[in-house]
Amino acid sequence: MTDGDARPLAVLRATIDALDRELLQLTARRMAVVAEVAAYKRAHGMRVRDPAREREVLAERTRDAAELGLPVGEVEAIFRLLLRASREHQSALRAEVPPGEPPRTVAIVGGHGRIGRVMARLFGDLGHRVLVADVDTEIGAAEAAAAADVVIVSVPIDVTEQVITTIGPHVREDALLMDVTSVKRAPVEAMLAATRASVVGTHPMFGASVHSLQGQRVVLCRGRGDAWADWLARTFTARGLVVTEATPAHHDRVMAIVQVLTHFQTQVLGLTLARAGLPLEETLRFTSPAYLLELYVAARHFAQSPALYGPLEMRNPELGAVTDAFRGAATELATVLRAGDQAAFEGMFAEVRAFFGDFTETALEQSSHLIDRIVERT
Amino acid sequence: MTDGDARPLAVLRATIDALDRELLQLTARRMAVVAEVAAYKRAHGMRVRDPAREREVLAERTRDAAELGLPVGEVEAIFRLLLRASREHQSALRAEVPPGEPPRTVAIVGGHGRIGRVMARLFGDLGHRVLVADVDTEIGAAEAAAAADVVIVSVPIDVTEQVITTIGPHVREDALLMDVTSVKRAPVEAMLAATRASVVGTHPMFGASVHSLQGQRVVLCRGRGDAWADWLARTFTARGLVVTEATPAHHDRVMAIVQVLTHFQTQVLGLTLARAGLPLEETLRFTSPAYLLELYVAARHFAQSPALYGPLEMRNPELGAVTDAFRGAATELATVLRAGDQAAFEGMFAEVRAFFGDFTETALEQSSHLIDRIVERT
Repeated sequence: MTDGDARPLAVLRATIDALDRELLQLTARRMAVVAEVAAYKRAHGMRVRDPAREREVLAERTRDAAELGLPVGEVEAIFRLLLRASREHQSALRAEVPPGEPPRTVAIVGGHGRIGRVMARLFGDLGHRVLVADVDTEIGAAEAAAAADVVIVSVPIDVTEQVITTIGPHVREDALLMDVTSVKRAPVEAMLAATRASVVGTHPMFGASVHSLQGQRVVLCRGRGDAWADWLARTFTARGLVVTEATPAHHDRVMAIVQVLTHFQTQVLGLTLARAGLPLEETLRFTSPAYLLELYVAARHFAQSPALYGPLEMRNPELGAVTDAFRGAATELATVLRAGDQAAFEGMFAEVRAFFGDFTETALEQSSHLIDRIVERT
Repeated sequence: MTDGDARPLAVLRATIDALDRELLQLTARRMAVVAEVAAYKRAHGMRVRDPAREREVLAERTRDAAELGLPVGEVEAIFRLLLRASREHQSALRAEVPPGEPPRTVAIVGGHGRIGRVMARLFGDLGHRVLVADVDTEIGAAEAAAAADVVIVSVPIDVTEQVITTIGPHVREDALLMDVTSVKRAPVEAMLAATRASVVGTHPMFGASVHSLQGQRVVLCRGRGDAWADWLARTFTARGLVVTEATPAHHDRVMAIVQVLTHFQTQVLGLTLARAGLPLEETLRFTSPAYLLELYVAARHFAQSPALYGPLEMRNPELGAVTDAFRGAATELATVLRAGDQAAFEGMFAEVRAFFGDFTETALEQSSHLIDRIVERT
């Protein structure tokens, strides 16, 4: 460097670089101890996640941070990241069938699809033998089904019932037939009709792009045979998933809200934006973090496949009721706003707030945290 | 502890605790060096943020992390947090009027409101003298306006023009009159009519609940007098804000999308959810991270004030066009879905995807990162 003034800054930065290397080495040593914790937990049949210990760690670290004059929010976020990395690390290390749980043969029909690959990894990680059947595999679906203790149908929603009907007769009576479709009534009925084996419908509430299975949710609908349903719930839980049980009908009713309504509103927003005559880039020049967050949520949807979302909405029996309710609310709200009726507007606002209850405050806190994460990345 | 097996785990955890204390002490040392960097930058009139250096730091740390076998994503997130904490720290340390920039008297009419308090802190942090006038202060708005170099009107949107008309005549001709309202055409016209002083309309694109001003955006509409407008842009930039300049008319057109459309769709979703007959808690049992993210974004809105959102939507001249377009899109999409017309659905999907372009991929990546942050906090 030729600038005489540059030296102090370069020296300071080199000091920071050295401190950061120490930080990373300490983190690596921390991970090594975490590996020992995992071994201990495995030997004692303990769960990976210990929420009480996590709360204790976060409370102590933020208290120490405050004493050292460090920014408490950032330190808390950093330790949450370390804890998550630790959980992942422990999960990976204990990825083997627990003692007393014999390894099974799991056939995945459609195992080369996105969710099929997630399932293959999930069961494979736990030490089970995975047979993948897909259009491009040597082994056929029927052959794989006949050879397996657990048969997972993981094909597009519009051919799920057809595949179930075809392979159902090949599933052994002491085996489990399950699916992973986003609707549950029709596939579970089809499975019950196609086989005398045990039947469970599942709906993994996460996409294939998820970075970690820890804490993700899966819905489980018992069809026939509690022993296999219990085994499946135990298996999912062992890999860090949260299991919600429901009847197929209740599942579909809730999905009319959780999926159909939210996807529909995202699609309506996207279509309105696309037709508003203002380029995306121009709106981004004016973006607030909240708008950017909304855009991420909306645009994320359109990075995915319409072949996935179309059938999911079209096949839900409550589609008509949901879209009618949505359009009615839009008309009512537009009328109130255009009349400049602030009192009626506040009445509607209060109605929604009453529905959300305390969740509005959680949402404000959580989304503010997310907005900070957005700002820090842009 | 009476359980003989508990000792090894307790010992391992004590080791982790000790490593974490070392991590925190290193972080504190890092912050002390950052303070020296801030002093150096201040002495040399340099900006707080150095994107090239930040990229370099992130690249080196993640490379080192990979060599140490550490999870690269988590390490990158941790260093982003450290960099952000550093920027905040440096900004706070250099919170003084830069050499050659004389301190000014800044009057904030409505200074006890939420955005008024943000403005008081922003200008106060930079070493300016802040006079707050509000309904409960001894000093009146006119008196404060007459005494100030910069007069900021920060009152509810429905009384902004009235307050501007009242205090305008008291603003000195060599001073600056500015507002912070979410629409810009009407207030800027009112300011130009009410005073012969310099006039700038501003719209801070962040709420009072924001944790950090770093990287937040503010729109600046020049009304009269470039010297003050330049000063204001410089001042905002010095505090870490990003300034977007626009005419008042263009600002209002963009806000019809960035604010009116997005708020409207959130309100329609909220109203539909509230009337769907399913308790929020029941939907949460089935939540995917993406649904939870959407709920946070929606419920966040209802934690805030309808007195803020109502006028913002009602006063935007494009309200009617936006709500009509939204309702039209909802009807069109509902018709396609109910007809089970997958080809038409994919056509609409493609239309929206073309509008978003590469942004869909950014959105998928960014929102996946946010979903990870949600999962790590729940």
